[in-house]
Amino acid sequence: MRNFVEAIARKRDGRELEATDLRAFVRGAAVGSLPDEQLAAMLMAICIRGASAGETQTLVEAMRDSGTCWGLGQRYPQAVDKHSTGGVGDSVSLVFAPLVAACGVQVVAMAGAGLGHTQGTLDKLGAIRGFRAAGNRREAIERLDACGVSFAAQSEEIAPADKKLYLLRDTTATVPSLPLIVASIMSKKLAVGARRLVLDVKCGSGAFCKTPEAARELAGALVSVARRAEVDVRAVVTAMDQPLGPNLGCASEVRAALAVLHGGGDSRLRELTVALAAEALELAGRDAAGARQELERRLADGTAAARFEAMVHAHGGDPDERRLARPTRSVPVPAGRGGYVTAIEAETLGWVAVVLGAGRRSQGDVPDPAAGVAVHARVGDRVAAGQSLATLEFGARALDEEELTARTAAAFTLGEEPVTAPPLVMWRLGASA
Amino acid sequence: MRNFVEAIARKRDGRELEATDLRAFVRGAAVGSLPDEQLAAMLMAICIRGASAGETQTLVEAMRDSGTCWGLGQRYPQAVDKHSTGGVGDSVSLVFAPLVAACGVQVVAMAGAGLGHTQGTLDKLGAIRGFRAAGNRREAIERLDACGVSFAAQSEEIAPADKKLYLLRDTTATVPSLPLIVASIMSKKLAVGARRLVLDVKCGSGAFCKTPEAARELAGALVSVARRAEVDVRAVVTAMDQPLGPNLGCASEVRAALAVLHGGGDSRLRELTVALAAEALELAGRDAAGARQELERRLADGTAAARFEAMVHAHGGDPDERRLARPTRSVPVPAGRGGYVTAIEAETLGWVAVVLGAGRRSQGDVPDPAAGVAVHARVGDRVAAGQSLATLEFGARALDEEELTARTAAAFTLGEEPVTAPPLVMWRLGASA
Repeated sequence: MRNFVEAIARKRDGRELEATDLRAFVRGAAVGSLPDEQLAAMLMAICIRGASAGETQTLVEAMRDSGTCWGLGQRYPQAVDKHSTGGVGDSVSLVFAPLVAACGVQVVAMAGAGLGHTQGTLDKLGAIRGFRAAGNRREAIERLDACGVSFAAQSEEIAPADKKLYLLRDTTATVPSLPLIVASIMSKKLAVGARRLVLDVKCGSGAFCKTPEAARELAGALVSVARRAEVDVRAVVTAMDQPLGPNLGCASEVRAALAVLHGGGDSRLRELTVALAAEALELAGRDAAGARQELERRLADGTAAARFEAMVHAHGGDPDERRLARPTRSVPVPAGRGGYVTAIEAETLGWVAVVLGAGRRSQGDVPDPAAGVAVHARVGDRVAAGQSLATLEFGARALDEEELTARTAAAFTLGEEPVTAPPLVMWRLGASA
Repeated sequence: MRNFVEAIARKRDGRELEATDLRAFVRGAAVGSLPDEQLAAMLMAICIRGASAGETQTLVEAMRDSGTCWGLGQRYPQAVDKHSTGGVGDSVSLVFAPLVAACGVQVVAMAGAGLGHTQGTLDKLGAIRGFRAAGNRREAIERLDACGVSFAAQSEEIAPADKKLYLLRDTTATVPSLPLIVASIMSKKLAVGARRLVLDVKCGSGAFCKTPEAARELAGALVSVARRAEVDVRAVVTAMDQPLGPNLGCASEVRAALAVLHGGGDSRLRELTVALAAEALELAGRDAAGARQELERRLADGTAAARFEAMVHAHGGDPDERRLARPTRSVPVPAGRGGYVTAIEAETLGWVAVVLGAGRRSQGDVPDPAAGVAVHARVGDRVAAGQSLATLEFGARALDEEELTARTAAAFTLGEEPVTAPPLVMWRLGASA
């Protein structure tokens, strides 16, 4: 205990930690051998003082080793993992996994539960009746062998130190720390063990990284850790200045994903999914042009949609779209004036969706699959006064519709001059590696 | 809870806290309404980011108001309080209190238990058989009325928020923070409520403030808080580059104090006590020269020593010096070579004394009054090879004498050239107020 106080003091003073200090920290979190106040003090010191590349690497490896390593890359050398740093209205994973698998490349995904203003992939999959994510290595292998995709839920056995630290960070204002974010993401990726990784680093008002510089720094740090662990990696910085897809909410995001899988759907959701899937296929050895062609063909000819069905079956779920929950009531949010949409606060819309029931305000919450927000206007669109900007989709909760309508309308900024949204894919990293 | 996370985030980002944030923090510590990890994260953020004068003042007042205020200054407008920031071999309080009281100025003192390498005044007083510090206002008044001195122990009722935060700071490496130190000291002083205060800010290798600049900054911050609370204050920065007095240990420090009270004793202990007592008398309206004369006379004519006896009686103790504990065994620490003593690591000697039993290594420890270290050589002294630098005074504990002898000897640096120790009183602040 005395030694760990000295370790906290080192980081407090901005000095580099020894590997033994970092391992003691991670062990303390995993097995409870350090009290929460010492973990919190160290988290805050790291949050303010930062961590070197070497410290971050040690932290990642210690957190990976705090639990079981599935090593799926040994069994499936081609398999790819995809990670997004957290977006609003982002149902890419639901399309990406069956699409890439339909191209013959297995997908292993660790799906998280949402907390805060973004919904988690696990919650969205939970909108599918009967869907059960893999809870251990054997279940992941069963799913991969059956359909080429395994969605796994973070379990006690994968990086338990991360689970503990993640909860503590939430209550101690130590979430926004680059090394802690990198360690949280990469420890789980390395424990699952895919040898190929596609990273989607979100950038913009609705993301942790508000600026392109911050996003590139995070992408660079993630890529650096992946490479040192001999993982083939691509990172893409993408725009999160407005919700990605047209829906926020569990069941509605599954529907949005199905629309893309059936060859149509929202153009932005489709564009980003294809871009990330192309990175995955390139990692598997395809050339860029061939990858895009194959992906478009799989979306057009129904093989991607069929793979989605197989994937849902392999996870014990019912793929019938008609069984997805529907809102109990829909309330349009009209524009108070006409003009061009110049900005949409994704984070605000995310919180409205959470209040409606689509997410978690605290650990114990269970998301309501029916609830959410449908977004009709995008940055750059021209809208008339009274035209619907969005629709509030109510689930089981009785709520004050006026306040939510006002908050939602206020998330849209209308101006006189047309603006152009930034390109969806802002930056790519790793292609030359 | 969500709001307090936002408060932590503000301080994490180096922004100023609202008064309501600081009050929530203090209330959370006092009544347990915030979990330790949130308190720890805030402590670390304050430790690294600092606090403004306004924030420090708010913190002090909130901590003062977290418990009972005794308001002794209303009943005893002349009474003076003295505080030292923590020295090694510093038994000034044991002389100061009866000496100043013998000059007609009451002394109210909140005596702390030692933790770490310094011994607390409460532990030293505990070496006197039967001595009981005041535990509440009524007991303090009884003692003041009987002998002009009240030593009080920090109780649950005085600044309970400080008690909680002090323990947390010890385990979270957030002790060395100027605003937290100021808040801890001043909240208790203001709760006890003397209107006059003499501060002894230690400076040097054995103190929290290693440099004169750091000591002046701390002195300035303490004085500023005292003045805003309308307390008449003097601060003195004094040297702690070597142990102050000739003894470290509970019973031996009482003996060192008695020697000074009887008109003799160690010259450095006497010099600093008289300097601080003169500040106290000046606060009570005496002129500087008259104050010194009176103090010297009280030491010479036995009235200070008599007041010590009265003080011990008023606190239920037995003033007979022959009843103080004596070491079970004394082991001299000889100089390995001859030369001039150029430095003495007070902190190392403090830790040796703790190991011998004179202090606390953890909250539950009870100091052994017989144990300690007697220091024979001072900075600037010339010693011959084999001459005794110090004596280890063993109490009840059976210990490895060789290792302790080696550690003690290593605390003394011997050189070829004579050096001059810095003046004991390095800087005074507040005289012109």
